[in-house]
Amino acid sequence: MTPLPYLQKANSSFIDRDVTKMGDLIKEWSGEKIRGVGLIGAPLSKSSISHSGACFAPGTIRKALSGYSTYSIEDTIDLAKWIIQDLGDVSMHVTNIEESQNRVYETILQLFKEHPSWLPIVLGGDNSITYPSIKGYQEAKGEVGVIQFDAHHDVRNLEDGGPSNGTPFRSLLESKTINGANLVQVGIRDFSNSKPYHDYVNNHGVTVYTMKDVRHTSMKELMETSLKKLEKSVDSIYVSVDMDVIDQAQAPGCPAIGPGGMDTVDLFEAISYLGEHPMVGGLEIVEVDPTVDFRDMTSRVAAHVILNFLKGKQRGGLTFD
Amino acid sequence: MTPLPYLQKANSSFIDRDVTKMGDLIKEWSGEKIRGVGLIGAPLSKSSISHSGACFAPGTIRKALSGYSTYSIEDTIDLAKWIIQDLGDVSMHVTNIEESQNRVYETILQLFKEHPSWLPIVLGGDNSITYPSIKGYQEAKGEVGVIQFDAHHDVRNLEDGGPSNGTPFRSLLESKTINGANLVQVGIRDFSNSKPYHDYVNNHGVTVYTMKDVRHTSMKELMETSLKKLEKSVDSIYVSVDMDVIDQAQAPGCPAIGPGGMDTVDLFEAISYLGEHPMVGGLEIVEVDPTVDFRDMTSRVAAHVILNFLKGKQRGGLTFD
Amino acid sequence: MTPLPYLQKANSSFIDRDVTKMGDLIKEWSGEKIRGVGLIGAPLSKSSISHSGACFAPGTIRKALSGYSTYSIEDTIDLAKWIIQDLGDVSMHVTNIEESQNRVYETILQLFKEHPSWLPIVLGGDNSITYPSIKGYQEAKGEVGVIQFDAHHDVRNLEDGGPSNGTPFRSLLESKTINGANLVQVGIRDFSNSKPYHDYVNNHGVTVYTMKDVRHTSMKELMETSLKKLEKSVDSIYVSVDMDVIDQAQAPGCPAIGPGGMDTVDLFEAISYLGEHPMVGGLEIVEVDPTVDFRDMTSRVAAHVILNFLKGKQRGGLTFD
Amino acid sequence: MTPLPYLQKANSSFIDRDVTKMGDLIKEWSGEKIRGVGLIGAPLSKSSISHSGACFAPGTIRKALSGYSTYSIEDTIDLAKWIIQDLGDVSMHVTNIEESQNRVYETILQLFKEHPSWLPIVLGGDNSITYPSIKGYQEAKGEVGVIQFDAHHDVRNLEDGGPSNGTPFRSLLESKTINGANLVQVGIRDFSNSKPYHDYVNNHGVTVYTMKDVRHTSMKELMETSLKKLEKSVDSIYVSVDMDVIDQAQAPGCPAIGPGGMDTVDLFEAISYLGEHPMVGGLEIVEVDPTVDFRDMTSRVAAHVILNFLKGKQRGGLTFD
Amino acid sequence: MTPLPYLQKANSSFIDRDVTKMGDLIKEWSGEKIRGVGLIGAPLSKSSISHSGACFAPGTIRKALSGYSTYSIEDTIDLAKWIIQDLGDVSMHVTNIEESQNRVYETILQLFKEHPSWLPIVLGGDNSITYPSIKGYQEAKGEVGVIQFDAHHDVRNLEDGGPSNGTPFRSLLESKTINGANLVQVGIRDFSNSKPYHDYVNNHGVTVYTMKDVRHTSMKELMETSLKKLEKSVDSIYVSVDMDVIDQAQAPGCPAIGPGGMDTVDLFEAISYLGEHPMVGGLEIVEVDPTVDFRDMTSRVAAHVILNFLKGKQRGGLTFD
Amino acid sequence: MTPLPYLQKANSSFIDRDVTKMGDLIKEWSGEKIRGVGLIGAPLSKSSISHSGACFAPGTIRKALSGYSTYSIEDTIDLAKWIIQDLGDVSMHVTNIEESQNRVYETILQLFKEHPSWLPIVLGGDNSITYPSIKGYQEAKGEVGVIQFDAHHDVRNLEDGGPSNGTPFRSLLESKTINGANLVQVGIRDFSNSKPYHDYVNNHGVTVYTMKDVRHTSMKELMETSLKKLEKSVDSIYVSVDMDVIDQAQAPGCPAIGPGGMDTVDLFEAISYLGEHPMVGGLEIVEVDPTVDFRDMTSRVAAHVILNFLKGKQRGGLTFD
Ligand SMILES: [Ca+2]
Ligand SMILES: [Ca+2]
Ligand SMILES: [Ca+2]
Ligand SMILES: [Ca+2]
Ligand SMILES: [Ca+2]
Ligand SMILES: [Ca+2]
Ligand SMILES: [Ca+2]
Ligand SMILES: [Ca+2]
Ligand SMILES: [Ca+2]
Ligand SMILES: [Ca+2]
Ligand SMILES: [Ca+2]
Ligand SMILES: [Ca+2]
Repeated sequence: MTPLPYLQKANSSFIDRDVTKMGDLIKEWSGEKIRGVGLIGAPLSKSSISHSGACFAPGTIRKALSGYSTYSIEDTIDLAKWIIQDLGDVSMHVTNIEESQNRVYETILQLFKEHPSWLPIVLGGDNSITYPSIKGYQEAKGEVGVIQFDAHHDVRNLEDGGPSNGTPFRSLLESKTINGANLVQVGIRDFSNSKPYHDYVNNHGVTVYTMKDVRHTSMKELMETSLKKLEKSVDSIYVSVDMDVIDQAQAPGCPAIGPGGMDTVDLFEAISYLGEHPMVGGLEIVEVDPTVDFRDMTSRVAAHVILNFLKGKQRGGLTFD
Repeated sequence: MTPLPYLQKANSSFIDRDVTKMGDLIKEWSGEKIRGVGLIGAPLSKSSISHSGACFAPGTIRKALSGYSTYSIEDTIDLAKWIIQDLGDVSMHVTNIEESQNRVYETILQLFKEHPSWLPIVLGGDNSITYPSIKGYQEAKGEVGVIQFDAHHDVRNLEDGGPSNGTPFRSLLESKTINGANLVQVGIRDFSNSKPYHDYVNNHGVTVYTMKDVRHTSMKELMETSLKKLEKSVDSIYVSVDMDVIDQAQAPGCPAIGPGGMDTVDLFEAISYLGEHPMVGGLEIVEVDPTVDFRDMTSRVAAHVILNFLKGKQRGGLTFD
Repeated sequence: MTPLPYLQKANSSFIDRDVTKMGDLIKEWSGEKIRGVGLIGAPLSKSSISHSGACFAPGTIRKALSGYSTYSIEDTIDLAKWIIQDLGDVSMHVTNIEESQNRVYETILQLFKEHPSWLPIVLGGDNSITYPSIKGYQEAKGEVGVIQFDAHHDVRNLEDGGPSNGTPFRSLLESKTINGANLVQVGIRDFSNSKPYHDYVNNHGVTVYTMKDVRHTSMKELMETSLKKLEKSVDSIYVSVDMDVIDQAQAPGCPAIGPGGMDTVDLFEAISYLGEHPMVGGLEIVEVDPTVDFRDMTSRVAAHVILNFLKGKQRGGLTFD
Repeated sequence: MTPLPYLQKANSSFIDRDVTKMGDLIKEWSGEKIRGVGLIGAPLSKSSISHSGACFAPGTIRKALSGYSTYSIEDTIDLAKWIIQDLGDVSMHVTNIEESQNRVYETILQLFKEHPSWLPIVLGGDNSITYPSIKGYQEAKGEVGVIQFDAHHDVRNLEDGGPSNGTPFRSLLESKTINGANLVQVGIRDFSNSKPYHDYVNNHGVTVYTMKDVRHTSMKELMETSLKKLEKSVDSIYVSVDMDVIDQAQAPGCPAIGPGGMDTVDLFEAISYLGEHPMVGGLEIVEVDPTVDFRDMTSRVAAHVILNFLKGKQRGGLTFD
Repeated sequence: MTPLPYLQKANSSFIDRDVTKMGDLIKEWSGEKIRGVGLIGAPLSKSSISHSGACFAPGTIRKALSGYSTYSIEDTIDLAKWIIQDLGDVSMHVTNIEESQNRVYETILQLFKEHPSWLPIVLGGDNSITYPSIKGYQEAKGEVGVIQFDAHHDVRNLEDGGPSNGTPFRSLLESKTINGANLVQVGIRDFSNSKPYHDYVNNHGVTVYTMKDVRHTSMKELMETSLKKLEKSVDSIYVSVDMDVIDQAQAPGCPAIGPGGMDTVDLFEAISYLGEHPMVGGLEIVEVDPTVDFRDMTSRVAAHVILNFLKGKQRGGLTFD
Repeated sequence: MTPLPYLQKANSSFIDRDVTKMGDLIKEWSGEKIRGVGLIGAPLSKSSISHSGACFAPGTIRKALSGYSTYSIEDTIDLAKWIIQDLGDVSMHVTNIEESQNRVYETILQLFKEHPSWLPIVLGGDNSITYPSIKGYQEAKGEVGVIQFDAHHDVRNLEDGGPSNGTPFRSLLESKTINGANLVQVGIRDFSNSKPYHDYVNNHGVTVYTMKDVRHTSMKELMETSLKKLEKSVDSIYVSVDMDVIDQAQAPGCPAIGPGGMDTVDLFEAISYLGEHPMVGGLEIVEVDPTVDFRDMTSRVAAHVILNFLKGKQRGGLTFD
């Protein structure tokens, strides 16, 4: 049979022999040992207080990420030798939201049990997945510190609506999954949180950096201080990025957008700095809603968060052998 | 104090002294006796299999309805003397979908208990609200016949995703809330239903009119036949309109749009014909998703469904004294 | 290792055990013998006179098609036992348009040489792919008759812009790939074609049914007459659907939309009728531009064209053994 | 100097030597004698009751019109020998709406005084321009009959908002510019007009064809009856098309869209039939709002209204010598 | 009667018992004494030179404002004890623009006469409402200083189009309602104003800070200098915010968007600083057009302008007893 | 004949006698001597690797530019005495992309031969036009230095797709049209270029300023260094602006958008600084795709690039006598 030189897989894109894309590194997982970075989707957003299509974000973030080059020209670092395993998505129940949240917990815990060196990048979904994700992470890792980028405290009471995207850090603190002293909230925004909830996190010893702090102190300094504190008190550090921490002009595709937010470049610098630290063992990105975004701009920001995290990890000496 | 002649309530619209609009008839309910038509919203769509913003439809349908004139020039009938009570919305739980569905049932049942002459117009929400709505209706009314306009049978199994917008008629049949012989499905569309589910409804004695039937038989004839059958076997008839029965060009704002659907004029004729019948005691409209619509076109179609229903009721001699 | 019950492939959708979808029948081709229906994409639209994103249509049509049920409730026919092979896309050159067109020709011809019983469904792309597609088809099949659904003659001169989406039938006639007497154009629209080109097709003996003919004669009659004529003079019949034959309200995602076009139901009836005929051996769909469509409505119409073609083939007794 | 073979006027489009487009016939007027069809824009929509961008319609309709072929394949009529003069737009005052309306009147009247054989095609703007347009037309032509395609009577009282897009026919009747017996309203829609206004037009002897009439009687018959009546009682007939007479699925770009409207093909047939009549001496198109349209679909419908009017005129024997 | 626990007012949103929202403070006015902050809408935009839907901004700004928390985490100030009275909208005439502008003047003047301690927040509408607003304000307050945030001088001549959104400061200066020396224009942008108008404001002694000044001097310094000057020469200071002063990326929903504009954070800082000053007695926001905005981003910026103004007032010691 | 005071050219806009707009300076060229700034469009984007509508940018940039004032308030410079000639667009072949590129080259070269003092502003189109543009420019001007603003190197190999928007600087370097030492690339972005291509430009002696450099060094300093180097080694300097150098929030209408890009104000400062230099003899703007933009924001940025270039030229003493 003559070969068919012009027939290719449907929906293929242009290939330049001199370009390695992230998509070339990402391999669909088929059950083998996970030794490093592994993507996992948690496409849940029925748990959101307001209408949200964040369940579509694992797809759009993967697509945005796949198109970028593996090469950081700013640091002359190439990720091209790594492999990123794509573990797939946690399947969600159509009508039982708490069951869906529990599946996230069980899947993450079980993956850690069998693949203890897994470095998870969790793609939400809304912020409600943070509680089961970190609960699974904590059971595998021990004492956990969390650096949370968010415009909001996310410590709403659980009586008024159950475990939603407004409650994850309430659940983590109440269940003592994490200790308030080991939680750092960065980018908390004016007129976007109530006094009772500000009091609540203060009472739990949470470190809070508002946008005023972000405007007046360098991101490097805030992160350095945070890491220095956490490295003494925890076994592992988890980074949680609620994309609404970014200004609405730069991340228009979040449910709770508004002005006065963080600049993407500040976030990228923070993330690569954190990624460099050997105790930082997990990253999650939540609250990206592609159905209200403009040209997937917010998913592109999310992809750059991941790229900067990986760049940090390579700067920090992480190797996959 | 001098009056302020130019100050009016925020967001007021232009008033023409010679025009009575539906909005002039609709009164917010404050607990008094309900004697006739009463709107109630069931803003639930987290129960949908695919992402749906149908929870916003009660708002957009009310808004579209309010802007229309009370006067049918085709029948020279004016609804201007009626009052439509707007009972408000059933409040939905943020994270417990079955609880939300149960609230629909309990609210409708309780309303009927205290206001037996209520003529409900239920604004979904997705099609999952049909089961609790009709369950409440049935407990108040006795043997119920249902005329369902829908592209789909909606008799999916309940194992694969729980009580969703794909299952309401399965639940109604399995629970014997309605008898298959008392269910008429109109507008069922090609390549949009599986053979097992077609077999299921056939086995339950359901009457099925596909779009082929709709194209080849007049709507009046289909409705006449249906009513003649039902009036012998039931105590009351409920009309359920899943807006995706309409062609995608005319109702672009439904989750499951497609070509080959019903024409709006046929639906309007069917609805006013049904409304005329004294045994028809309830109407629901579901599966309108304003977040994906174009200029609220689909909510405008929904408003005309209601208008034609009311016109039918007036032709049929319904009075509110 | 414990199984991971909730981990599934990324971007999976809801599965109902009682529903067979077209996506379940479509299998990515891996070089084995092609025995029946095979999809092939020709994602070329740089050849269009006006700006066109029709190159994205193979993707959106495949996606729309995959979601439909295999079951025709109107004819109680289930396609569930068939297999549809997805051969992939012809790869297009970035900057050489004629090379891209030639790749379509070569790929189709070579596929027929090695898989003579292949029943191609070609997904454009713009209408320029029609010339290389039919040229390849003709070299494999002998004398070819074409039934073209289109608002336009598509016989522009080749001097003013080369082989574009306005010229395919000019090229086919001039190269004598097909004989004018064996070409039937259906749905040609008012004020959308010039007199010189109308004269041109008349001079070549082409059969032309304008929209006026379509409004005044039943589609069944037009198709019956066309097939009766062609079955005497050709070896094989190819059906070409330029989606702009449909009215702009029903197919808003074509480059050259306008009012006064065909109704989708008429097209579906024509297509299933044609599919039934044993001499009809190929189908193509062109000029769907998803970048200007509304909610992929036009790709959904395209999917129904394919479904009706397959229904016709099953009615006509086509079997895959 | 060597010619520059590849330099052309900015924004030129593709030229096919074998195609004559309407744009080739339309010439910018420079004060010479007007002998036949002349386009004039009345870009006023600040007079609308609801927010309207109909002021942009003269531009989008001209653009849509220019792209169509001059050739009617349905009637084998070519308009290619005609010239259409484009007189430009009436300039509108920024803040004085009544002044703007008066400019329409004065401009049209003065044009008729100096160019009595002018056959105007007036491009609105909103429906408020109808009163000054027809007033100017009437002063030039004598007794005028009007055939108005509209979902609405447009006879609102003038006290509640002044001369708006809801009042033109009130003004025409009250000022006795036209006689109620010489007004035919076609396409009046259910639940879109109040009883007092229906009574008003009835009391003035206006002929009203509702959409129910349109559905049950052929357009040819309605037009024939109307013309027969008018030709006895008037000197000249003016055709007014409010595009919202068309169903919202086919003309989505009008301020007051809704379901249950006229089909474009019916309108086109009516218009070409009317155009054929020698007493029909003017056409206007109003209420197209391009800012809320989808892909200029509604302006394309407007262009086809003009094309059918011109086809009718040619069928009727109009010549330009 | 049993209470109906799940029935709530239509369109209600989620309530968290621990969150006070601005919407909880805003009360519809019913004629009682106005003692502090009172919102008033001036929904006029027919007066705009270019097409504008700014008439819808009072609605979208109110909605955006209502959703924010009353708590400033940056200043640990809670507005929760205040009441904001919503006085409603000035009703606008459909066709008489100057009448509409006069209604703004009369309403504001009369409100001040009867409620001298009213602190108005005026929601435009376009910038034409500034002349009648400040005229009313001035008659009540005495000598008025104005700090205007705007990309444009807004001193167009009144001959070419009457009192439009391009003329308010011309009218204020010509009528001597304000003195040029008491006007400060901040954020005037390059290539967005003509030399004659720059000369005009210079000749009237207006203080002009261009965007170059804003980039090179801190906002605090510019405001401090401005207030120091005005507090000596005026009785009261009014703050006028034309939202197009902000960069188009951050306020995309203004008619006259462009690059090179102010950052929202700079505006917020200026506004809260100004609010703190006891002589600042009024705020207006104009030129927000929700019909061309993206996700109400610009209305959200407007809401933050109001929040920062109120925060400033509370920092400045304003009390409501 | 009485003049028609209110009749104006179609689509005219509001005229303020005290404002000179750029549109007043721009004159359609009719073959006379070109003495200074001349706009020329190169509407080609079929050459793009990804789908692009950059062919529409010459139209949208002209439109945006025409609406701005001629007056720079920041520099108190008025361009009002200049004339800008608009030479029109290079006509593009429908199906032969290399022919289209060659037409750009031939047209530019021939224009320079006959009009050596022409100062071209070239409006793309995609970046593929850079090679023929600069080739023509170089043949007229001698040794050429290029300052390229771009997120990307654009030195892809030519084997994988031919001369596309990814290859222009490869072609320029390989053909020795320019020398690597005379190329400055500014704004090169992280994870957007491959290591082999970074190596390629390094090997050719290209000066590369990444976004990290832009963040840490002032634009004035980068430009000063670049000009000092180039003025020694070249005869003329050409400025090439790929608009995707700007952050996606500020230039959302480019095919390859992303976060982490340049701020518009930095670009404007660079451009006016460069324009001031007498050796800078040409400007091009590419990769603006109006079909995916929001409210022509990116074309407005492009217009400001041109305005700043002209301001620089006037500051630099350029005169047109
Ligand atoms: Ca948040
Ligand atoms: Ca959060
Ligand atoms: Ca359905
Ligand atoms: Ca349904
Ligand atoms: Ca066509
Ligand atoms: Ca075609
Ligand atoms: Ca109307
Ligand atoms: Ca009207
Ligand atoms: Ca302004
Ligand atoms: Ca202004
Ligand atoms: Ca680039
Ligand atoms: Ca480039």
